[in-house]
Amino acid sequence: MNDPSLRDVADWWATAVSRVEPNRIELRGRPVQDLIGTVGFTDMIWLMLRGGLPTPGRRRLLEAALVSSVDHGPHAPSIAVARMAATCGIGLNNAVATGVNLLGDVHGGAGEQCMRLLAEITAGADAADVVAQWRAESRYLPGFGHRFHTVDPRRDPLLTLVEQAVADGVVDGAHLRAARAVERILAPVPINIDGCTAVVYGELGFAPPLARGLFVLSRSVGILAHAWEETGQGRRNKGPIPPSILPTHLGDDPCTGEASTPA
Amino acid sequence: MNDPSLRDVADWWATAVSRVEPNRIELRGRPVQDLIGTVGFTDMIWLMLRGGLPTPGRRRLLEAALVSSVDHGPHAPSIAVARMAATCGIGLNNAVATGVNLLGDVHGGAGEQCMRLLAEITAGADAADVVAQWRAESRYLPGFGHRFHTVDPRRDPLLTLVEQAVADGVVDGAHLRAARAVERILAPVPINIDGCTAVVYGELGFAPPLARGLFVLSRSVGILAHAWEETGQGRRNKGPIPPSILPTHLGDDPCTGEASTPA
Amino acid sequence: MNDPSLRDVADWWATAVSRVEPNRIELRGRPVQDLIGTVGFTDMIWLMLRGGLPTPGRRRLLEAALVSSVDHGPHAPSIAVARMAATCGIGLNNAVATGVNLLGDVHGGAGEQCMRLLAEITAGADAADVVAQWRAESRYLPGFGHRFHTVDPRRDPLLTLVEQAVADGVVDGAHLRAARAVERILAPVPINIDGCTAVVYGELGFAPPLARGLFVLSRSVGILAHAWEETGQGRRNKGPIPPSILPTHLGDDPCTGEASTPA
Amino acid sequence: MNDPSLRDVADWWATAVSRVEPNRIELRGRPVQDLIGTVGFTDMIWLMLRGGLPTPGRRRLLEAALVSSVDHGPHAPSIAVARMAATCGIGLNNAVATGVNLLGDVHGGAGEQCMRLLAEITAGADAADVVAQWRAESRYLPGFGHRFHTVDPRRDPLLTLVEQAVADGVVDGAHLRAARAVERILAPVPINIDGCTAVVYGELGFAPPLARGLFVLSRSVGILAHAWEETGQGRRNKGPIPPSILPTHLGDDPCTGEASTPA
Repeated sequence: MNDPSLRDVADWWATAVSRVEPNRIELRGRPVQDLIGTVGFTDMIWLMLRGGLPTPGRRRLLEAALVSSVDHGPHAPSIAVARMAATCGIGLNNAVATGVNLLGDVHGGAGEQCMRLLAEITAGADAADVVAQWRAESRYLPGFGHRFHTVDPRRDPLLTLVEQAVADGVVDGAHLRAARAVERILAPVPINIDGCTAVVYGELGFAPPLARGLFVLSRSVGILAHAWEETGQGRRNKGPIPPSILPTHLGDDPCTGEASTPA
Repeated sequence: MNDPSLRDVADWWATAVSRVEPNRIELRGRPVQDLIGTVGFTDMIWLMLRGGLPTPGRRRLLEAALVSSVDHGPHAPSIAVARMAATCGIGLNNAVATGVNLLGDVHGGAGEQCMRLLAEITAGADAADVVAQWRAESRYLPGFGHRFHTVDPRRDPLLTLVEQAVADGVVDGAHLRAARAVERILAPVPINIDGCTAVVYGELGFAPPLARGLFVLSRSVGILAHAWEETGQGRRNKGPIPPSILPTHLGDDPCTGEASTPA
Repeated sequence: MNDPSLRDVADWWATAVSRVEPNRIELRGRPVQDLIGTVGFTDMIWLMLRGGLPTPGRRRLLEAALVSSVDHGPHAPSIAVARMAATCGIGLNNAVATGVNLLGDVHGGAGEQCMRLLAEITAGADAADVVAQWRAESRYLPGFGHRFHTVDPRRDPLLTLVEQAVADGVVDGAHLRAARAVERILAPVPINIDGCTAVVYGELGFAPPLARGLFVLSRSVGILAHAWEETGQGRRNKGPIPPSILPTHLGDDPCTGEASTPA
Repeated sequence: MNDPSLRDVADWWATAVSRVEPNRIELRGRPVQDLIGTVGFTDMIWLMLRGGLPTPGRRRLLEAALVSSVDHGPHAPSIAVARMAATCGIGLNNAVATGVNLLGDVHGGAGEQCMRLLAEITAGADAADVVAQWRAESRYLPGFGHRFHTVDPRRDPLLTLVEQAVADGVVDGAHLRAARAVERILAPVPINIDGCTAVVYGELGFAPPLARGLFVLSRSVGILAHAWEETGQGRRNKGPIPPSILPTHLGDDPCTGEASTPA
């Protein structure tokens, strides 16, 4: 390892996340055999992203946020494209990757953006000033309002869990207060699911980009479930188009020839 | 470079495709400055995949096949998902990758499969036996028939170009004869676009997997054009769902909050 | 909804996974508000893929398998490409999708293949015959042996948990017995991590393709953790190449110009 | 089509790019049979992105830019990940998508950024002011300088073609003059390949985001060529890591078991 080139390589691979040697696997410094059967999958997510294990109270909040974002119906683009991918003869891993690839600034990115907005307030800025500033830059306030739900069924359970955690001294409640302050200013526009998860992740001390990262882990479950169901239906090269008005969705593919080939 | 580890690295990177040194770039052994302005993009595709430049007659066939597969309407899954991706706030490169990821065995793979079928016949097998064998394994014959077009407008121009190339001694016509033999057996089911491009790529001596690879390069143009058009429309997180019956496609995203936030 | 075209659309979107209506979100028939704060993320994975909730004993097995596959070092292709992606200026979601896209038949697919092998034995075939048959078709037996670990530290904890579950009547042990029978035939080649997780997923009644699907969910955590760490290091357009022997990894990108631009 | 829901669907699918009806395929309003055999692949790229066909002089410039960006060695992240993907048992289309997914703001995005910089100058701003402003916002100026090449072999051929095109009245030269003005200010830092292609695309009137889109089409050729070569080498689940110092790149996959399984 004295050769500078080898040090270059070794340096590139340097990581605090995992260490693997013959017959030894350490994740964040913990031997994997000490984790299997003793910690849960949500603890593992926290460990890999934060470097330690969460307290039970903090794990409970993270678990609730991960559960709440799993799926919002087959028409969300991330789910729709994964179902279409599953009909095109690619692997289940490729179908999940196709859906995850769409979770950008617009679809899934609101949590990250809302965390940045709330962080300005928890850092001491006046909520009204922050709202006015964001309004001046965009017509939208990430994390508030919903085109579809007037009362999002996920809102109260999540905020109630955060309130309990504040009462129990698990978190300090700064992000919850910031979100409520913005909600009062925007009334009657309510905080939405992205705002609720932003509050949870902010209270737990995650960096804003990880709001998107954690949404990716959560939504991957829904993407996989929908891609798997679609695979089981055995449809080939299908898009959500009514053939009677839009027959051309058949595309250029083997099955375009199949139906007209006497079986 | 005497260190075995460095030889391991160098060996992994060994390639005949390109060689880059300070102030020198060679593609398939040719200095890039000798190619810029002197060869066309289609020549470049041939050079990178085959190692040499095509004759004008062979380039003309490849060019025609690449032109014919660029697009088949917005409803083909590869195009539809790229348009949906473009509304989710990810890069144009990510939108194109999303569409290309779907070009698997079912959507885009027919050319590769048809080349394998034709190769059995050009290798000496009897067309009727080959058809019967493929029928026994699948209800479908890749490259033949179309659910939508009774006469695919791309068929005659492509086959006519191959016929001319055979007459001019550019290619030997073995794959064209094999496809015609299968077509006679399946009558009235016609050879389709995947079969036509399989004939072209087979006559040009490409390996079957490159039928999919060349389709990827061709269809990428249509995917990019559609993703770019969708980007210009500025729609956010949209799926091809009629809101009046399927409002839930709005998903969990910033724009779900936008409409209800007073602008 | 009497219009056949609308029925075509509605039919395409039909799913048993989730139902979303104004102010109502049901996942596998359960109102989301009944799940948030009451079930764990692993329960949610089971619910979305199976339609019901697991018993505590079954959840414990699934949780252990998910924990065991999270990461195996930065050099696994799925992790390496995600780290490289994170240096190229794409989103964290795109970096995770890039890594997940690689979890195909070779990297991550062993569990699915091993489940198919074990299923032949649990269905009544003789282990020796099955091994001989797979050997005849391939030089490899998925789920057995490891090029690196002589004793994989994840093996014993996982198999011990399955043994306990069999003793507790949680699962019937058929897949564990099948794997042990193959292991005896291959001695001294041991069952590896893919074989261990295949035993768990088989005992829990998952379909073989979901072994890959569950590996995707598990490894996504490691992919995200590594991509996030790489993002924090702020390197741009980097590959794991020692510049002193392989300087050309710099590629064509903005930062190729940066170093030589007086700051 | 009187049902509002159906109009919603039809409206979503509305596009000026292509129109497909039974036995009729129109691309940008031109029947596909009129294009096959009569226009080249580069003409087709222009037609799909711009809506018309280029003049011979403009096509020559676009062709040169597309040829120049095809490949810059196996170590560019886009190429490296595609080669790694090809060893993981996923399709050639998935391997290309993996590489294309990395062509973001850092790797491939310089052309788009340089076009925005040049546009400020062609719009009338003083080059020195623009350079000072960009310097104030970033330490980097996209399109200028190279960490590796002191004289990029692609620079002179491309700029010479643009000069000829200006002399021939094919383009007006505004972007070429703007780039040269910046180059004088940054001397001795030269314009790099991203700057040269930005000049070409700017002179041809493409929107800045299409500099990335066109780079995607060009680099896809190199990505495909490298993925195909890697596929032919038959290596499984390989990363560019020297086993003697970094053995753990083997990962968790079937082949980890294969080598130690007596064949």
